[in-house]
Amino acid sequence: MPRLMKSKSKKIGLAPGTLIHIGRKKIENATITAINYNEKKIETKELKEVKEFFKINKKDSTTWLNITGLHETSIIEDIGKAFKIHSLVLEDIMNTDQRPKFEDYDEYLFIVLKILSYDAKTNNVITEQISILLSQEYVITFQENENRIFSPIIEKLNVEKSKLRIYGTDYLAYRLLDIIIDNYFLVLEKIGERIEFFEEELINEGKQDSLKEIYKIKRENILLRKSVWPLREVISKIERTDSEIITTRSNVYLRDLHDHTIQVIDTLETYRDMTTSMIDLHLSNTSNKMNEIMKVLTIIATIFIPLTFIAGVYGMNFNNMPELHMKYGYYATWGIMIFIGGLMVYYFKKKDWI
Amino acid sequence: MPRLMKSKSKKIGLAPGTLIHIGRKKIENATITAINYNEKKIETKELKEVKEFFKINKKDSTTWLNITGLHETSIIEDIGKAFKIHSLVLEDIMNTDQRPKFEDYDEYLFIVLKILSYDAKTNNVITEQISILLSQEYVITFQENENRIFSPIIEKLNVEKSKLRIYGTDYLAYRLLDIIIDNYFLVLEKIGERIEFFEEELINEGKQDSLKEIYKIKRENILLRKSVWPLREVISKIERTDSEIITTRSNVYLRDLHDHTIQVIDTLETYRDMTTSMIDLHLSNTSNKMNEIMKVLTIIATIFIPLTFIAGVYGMNFNNMPELHMKYGYYATWGIMIFIGGLMVYYFKKKDWI
Amino acid sequence: MPRLMKSKSKKIGLAPGTLIHIGRKKIENATITAINYNEKKIETKELKEVKEFFKINKKDSTTWLNITGLHETSIIEDIGKAFKIHSLVLEDIMNTDQRPKFEDYDEYLFIVLKILSYDAKTNNVITEQISILLSQEYVITFQENENRIFSPIIEKLNVEKSKLRIYGTDYLAYRLLDIIIDNYFLVLEKIGERIEFFEEELINEGKQDSLKEIYKIKRENILLRKSVWPLREVISKIERTDSEIITTRSNVYLRDLHDHTIQVIDTLETYRDMTTSMIDLHLSNTSNKMNEIMKVLTIIATIFIPLTFIAGVYGMNFNNMPELHMKYGYYATWGIMIFIGGLMVYYFKKKDWI
Amino acid sequence: MPRLMKSKSKKIGLAPGTLIHIGRKKIENATITAINYNEKKIETKELKEVKEFFKINKKDSTTWLNITGLHETSIIEDIGKAFKIHSLVLEDIMNTDQRPKFEDYDEYLFIVLKILSYDAKTNNVITEQISILLSQEYVITFQENENRIFSPIIEKLNVEKSKLRIYGTDYLAYRLLDIIIDNYFLVLEKIGERIEFFEEELINEGKQDSLKEIYKIKRENILLRKSVWPLREVISKIERTDSEIITTRSNVYLRDLHDHTIQVIDTLETYRDMTTSMIDLHLSNTSNKMNEIMKVLTIIATIFIPLTFIAGVYGMNFNNMPELHMKYGYYATWGIMIFIGGLMVYYFKKKDWI
Amino acid sequence: MPRLMKSKSKKIGLAPGTLIHIGRKKIENATITAINYNEKKIETKELKEVKEFFKINKKDSTTWLNITGLHETSIIEDIGKAFKIHSLVLEDIMNTDQRPKFEDYDEYLFIVLKILSYDAKTNNVITEQISILLSQEYVITFQENENRIFSPIIEKLNVEKSKLRIYGTDYLAYRLLDIIIDNYFLVLEKIGERIEFFEEELINEGKQDSLKEIYKIKRENILLRKSVWPLREVISKIERTDSEIITTRSNVYLRDLHDHTIQVIDTLETYRDMTTSMIDLHLSNTSNKMNEIMKVLTIIATIFIPLTFIAGVYGMNFNNMPELHMKYGYYATWGIMIFIGGLMVYYFKKKDWI
Repeated sequence: MPRLMKSKSKKIGLAPGTLIHIGRKKIENATITAINYNEKKIETKELKEVKEFFKINKKDSTTWLNITGLHETSIIEDIGKAFKIHSLVLEDIMNTDQRPKFEDYDEYLFIVLKILSYDAKTNNVITEQISILLSQEYVITFQENENRIFSPIIEKLNVEKSKLRIYGTDYLAYRLLDIIIDNYFLVLEKIGERIEFFEEELINEGKQDSLKEIYKIKRENILLRKSVWPLREVISKIERTDSEIITTRSNVYLRDLHDHTIQVIDTLETYRDMTTSMIDLHLSNTSNKMNEIMKVLTIIATIFIPLTFIAGVYGMNFNNMPELHMKYGYYATWGIMIFIGGLMVYYFKKKDWI
Repeated sequence: MPRLMKSKSKKIGLAPGTLIHIGRKKIENATITAINYNEKKIETKELKEVKEFFKINKKDSTTWLNITGLHETSIIEDIGKAFKIHSLVLEDIMNTDQRPKFEDYDEYLFIVLKILSYDAKTNNVITEQISILLSQEYVITFQENENRIFSPIIEKLNVEKSKLRIYGTDYLAYRLLDIIIDNYFLVLEKIGERIEFFEEELINEGKQDSLKEIYKIKRENILLRKSVWPLREVISKIERTDSEIITTRSNVYLRDLHDHTIQVIDTLETYRDMTTSMIDLHLSNTSNKMNEIMKVLTIIATIFIPLTFIAGVYGMNFNNMPELHMKYGYYATWGIMIFIGGLMVYYFKKKDWI
Repeated sequence: MPRLMKSKSKKIGLAPGTLIHIGRKKIENATITAINYNEKKIETKELKEVKEFFKINKKDSTTWLNITGLHETSIIEDIGKAFKIHSLVLEDIMNTDQRPKFEDYDEYLFIVLKILSYDAKTNNVITEQISILLSQEYVITFQENENRIFSPIIEKLNVEKSKLRIYGTDYLAYRLLDIIIDNYFLVLEKIGERIEFFEEELINEGKQDSLKEIYKIKRENILLRKSVWPLREVISKIERTDSEIITTRSNVYLRDLHDHTIQVIDTLETYRDMTTSMIDLHLSNTSNKMNEIMKVLTIIATIFIPLTFIAGVYGMNFNNMPELHMKYGYYATWGIMIFIGGLMVYYFKKKDWI
Repeated sequence: MPRLMKSKSKKIGLAPGTLIHIGRKKIENATITAINYNEKKIETKELKEVKEFFKINKKDSTTWLNITGLHETSIIEDIGKAFKIHSLVLEDIMNTDQRPKFEDYDEYLFIVLKILSYDAKTNNVITEQISILLSQEYVITFQENENRIFSPIIEKLNVEKSKLRIYGTDYLAYRLLDIIIDNYFLVLEKIGERIEFFEEELINEGKQDSLKEIYKIKRENILLRKSVWPLREVISKIERTDSEIITTRSNVYLRDLHDHTIQVIDTLETYRDMTTSMIDLHLSNTSNKMNEIMKVLTIIATIFIPLTFIAGVYGMNFNNMPELHMKYGYYATWGIMIFIGGLMVYYFKKKDWI
Repeated sequence: MPRLMKSKSKKIGLAPGTLIHIGRKKIENATITAINYNEKKIETKELKEVKEFFKINKKDSTTWLNITGLHETSIIEDIGKAFKIHSLVLEDIMNTDQRPKFEDYDEYLFIVLKILSYDAKTNNVITEQISILLSQEYVITFQENENRIFSPIIEKLNVEKSKLRIYGTDYLAYRLLDIIIDNYFLVLEKIGERIEFFEEELINEGKQDSLKEIYKIKRENILLRKSVWPLREVISKIERTDSEIITTRSNVYLRDLHDHTIQVIDTLETYRDMTTSMIDLHLSNTSNKMNEIMKVLTIIATIFIPLTFIAGVYGMNFNNMPELHMKYGYYATWGIMIFIGGLMVYYFKKKDWI
């Protein structure tokens, strides 16, 4: 199961802005990819050093710089110097236990989000952090790991006269956010399927240990909420910002994003209510089963214990037991035992236990 | 049971505004019905193409265009071009997993709602999406399936000098909203009846598996909430909009609608509290039953186990057991056994177990 | 038990403002009582028709028109015409499933409330609707049934120079609201007594089926909340209204009313918390009882089952069983059995089970 | 246990401002104590009539009038006339079921609070009401019963040049409020000790009926909340009032009071969470005990029932039972029985039941 | 376990601003450490008296005065006089049961916070109070005990040209707050590890008494919440204050602090949800175990009780029992018994109990 918290111990007591990578190293070598484009042409290049960026970047064009792998402090530092990024921002980029947030630093906007994906093998949700820096000339994205979720955007960028090529950095950023949030729906769909599966199990009283699975889903929901709830605030802040980097043309797109975010949160809340109800159902199933077991025991014991007693009585060795010498004593005893047994069965029938 | 979420996987990575139908196809062929009316005359026509609309539409008249079936992308596209609708709106219309919402696009207003109906056979609530586009000249409604809920409005439209004929598009839209929300009450009534039925069952300790039914009602409530809660916000936004499409004459009607919406939400909340209480009652019933079963077992076992022991003792085969040779030993043993049995019965009476 | 919802099916699809009585008919014939008064004189009259009102009404006087029985559409319609009441208001008056509300229609104010009373026989709370129309000249009240709760006000009205006679319609309306809310306290008192009674039962572990009664109280609370929660909003709106019908002289009275409303809500919330705690206590009682039953069974069974086994052993019929032929074998066996029994008793004592 | 509500039945239907004492009469005769002081001198006197006040009261001095006992309507009425108090205020003073509140009547301020104290004998919290009237010249306090909580203030008043003597009525009122809220902490401390005691009991699985005690604490908390929650609003309103009776010098003191109030509420909320957790722990303890009981029963029964069966088999009286005539049949049977018993014990050991 | 509340009884009735130490004395002798620094030089000194401060303090320099140990009233009083601190502030400093808060006294700002640390031996969270006084020239900190958490800051202060040396008092205060809140993450990490440990235990159904440990974690969370929740408000107030002591340069740092605070609260809420879910899981585990125990008992009892009855029947001593004399009666009886036993086993297999 995913950990509840990432260790921050190595950071305690350091000056703010000190760069330390918090999180697991998920990729061997960090890579820098630069895409420079305008309406007419597009150029993609793997950079070895951050400096190369300035060779590529040209007038009247937009650049998207994508850094994969956050553990190489030198790269992050170089970018910080090259683009004059505040050291607290750089610190946040390297701390992968960040809460989703939006901050306006006048010259650039800073967005932190989580990329969610579903690992079908372990049935776990994988959470990765993405940081987006956005100015009027460039978009810089920082990812923990190679992630193919942006490939549709890269494809689209290569299409001439697509909106992506014509509109500026804010539209590119919107498309990145849009695809990230769309992926949330995929994850929610998978969780929803699992909920429906265990729901079915519960109603048909199938497996016995479904509670542990429901517990895992609930735990996932609790952790997802930490990634998803702040999202609404992030998108709202982007919508309301008076920064010139966000053009008015983007308003309608951001409103759409806002709607999606609320739908994600709504779905998560629905799942929470569902799992809570499922636990109630499970507990009731368990006590129903207990009831059934107890009934079987009670019926058998209650019928046979008195009969065994009667048999015991006539197994006593007293000299003077007249019944033993009666001719039909044995048959009479059987009669009495069958009558008592029948009475018990009748009683249980009346009580609806059989 | 209805699904928790509709699959959105085919949409991931597409540009915003790309038209893809999300949801199940519920009708074979999409149809377009146009009703053009003013105070004096009314004309109803099935359209084959969207273009025909412009032949029908006349000066000084209001047109209601009703599209049934959302899977034919071409129709939605044609309408988009004909009425200059934003591509994001068209996308929302085709995505039947939309959250109820209201958006003001200056030239037209866009409302998404859910039509609820109750399927008496399966005891399920059926949710369909309706989108309403509203300008000063036309009302366009998009439904998933043929639905007879608007027929009273169509009848009324045919009555000369009815308010519907005299007032403009906003009054027609209000009437559509009003009839949609009125249908919510019908659905709530049905759910209320089921709650009352299972409540009765619980109090009289009738059926054993009522919890599963309560669970289903609860599940329905959870899903309904997703359709109903955003409604309040939708109606509030319509009330507060400064769009000229909504005339001041409509204020009092919208206030009425707002009241109804709150009543729907109130009722849903009441149902939620009711079902939660019913689960408590059910759990208590179950443990009461268990108590009763245990009592029966305990009474029988506790009375007969000691007696069986006594009988066992005098069934032993020791040579030297003086009691066996006493003349009234057998009767004395019966006496002791009856006394012990009686004592037990007395004890249980005192404990109020019998 | 009271129904969760009143059927609205007959209303679906009708134009807004269509008058249809929703609710049960509680009185045979509707009656109209008019009281016309000013500082100097007072006149009370049963009206046969609404028109008669205008004969009674005089200059410089206040009139209170009380309609009992809401099923006669004609009377409501006549009043609508006579006093120029909006058709949506008339519709709301006849729909007894209305949510408490306040609306300002400039010329008159419209208040809907619930009258609560307690039926000691069935232990149910009876909810009736009252609508109050208030202008500067008249107060019109619409009740479902003959109700004696206003008789103290009528008495007071007959006292010359009482504030009621001197102050205007807003003071009369305040007094009506005050007496309605005072009756809420009576109902809460009765429910409080029942809660205290069942609390006592629970703590002394009296009755077994107290949970069902607690459930009924909880259900009542849930339904009462629908009548009571909107009240705060209603009174707040009256306080804040800038209508000239409400004089500044009334401010201090409305503040008092506001206080009472909050106290009613507070008490209801307290009851909710109480009943929730009581259910916990009940569940614990049930499992305590189960524990006790199990203990009795376990003690008896655990003591006698091993003893019965020993008796069984010496009841075997093997030829070669030396113990049987020992002189004191029988007594030794008794010794062993008593020792084992004693050991068990000692064990249970140590475990605090006895 | 304290009652949930005080009976208000005798008040229904009376005009607002009618004086009726609601609550239990806690003292035989009401007393009036007047303390008149300024920087230089102080005079304390028991008054027989309210009128005497005006003899005592002098220019340039502050008077504190303390009325103990609220059942004598005449005294309250006299004070009402003497100080021109609104009749609704007088009504509130006599109704000891009042919610804590603050009201500004321009010439005077009106504060209602609860004095809490802890009765160590019955482990109950005793709630008494105190009303404070505050103008620029006098402070009038109305208590239900003789209460020594103000004696430190009276002592301090007798100290020359103490702040109390120098500052005006608002500082005296602040000190009264401060000492009242300080007493809340005492009560919370006692409840906290009881919670800790029963927590200890629960963790060490001491007493069995701790749930009833937790229930009582929870009930107390629920009732206390009614006294404490409105306090925050009361103090906030006093802080924000623009009445000239509250001098700016008092701001810092009121802020301190506000802090204390929030701390009281925080503690109460903590207690609520604690008791809820304790109930969970208790329920788990109960089912653990049940598990243990069941284990003992199961172990004993499961070991001996098969053995008893074997003994029973060889107690049968068939003519043709070869085993009975074998030489070592009896010993072999013992062998088998010990083997089976040992197997069972091994099984339970493996299951960790022993 | 930590106490719920510190005793305040000795404070009741005292004038506001009276200095009394509330809390346990944690250090023998209070110490005063002064650090005076500016860009160029730094001087650290242990003071014997507060007066010495003024000898050390120089123009154009910042002083940090750290007092350890709050029980010596004289020191606090001396500081109060020397720096003209309001007596209510001094009172708050000495009361270690203070709620975290921020107050602006124009000439200085007053911040109260909790320092959290984790005692690995007892698995308890230790809470200590720290008060910070902040003016443009000095920072005064009051701690309960010697605490090494500020040592990284002291080290950094000794580094020439570090931001700490260059920026003023507000930056020093920010760094103090930052390190305090960083320590919260350490504590949360430890609690998170314990939650994960017991989660693992629960899922693998390891220990039996894990609930008590979860209870302790929950209790810790409840108490932590009292320290952590007010933090958000404290930081917000510092961010929004218009005091000149906080320079605009600090805004970005305070925003960072605000983010951290929200993350702490988020994590605490996550833990709360986790523990609640874990209790559900535990309860289900317990009833699953019970079910298993009951199954074993039921299987054994249900198989052998009927067989014992049959054996009992043929152990009866009736003269006339034909079966006893049949040649293969004994074998037939075994046959019947094995058949019945087999039937039972088959039944339990079908029910999935074996």
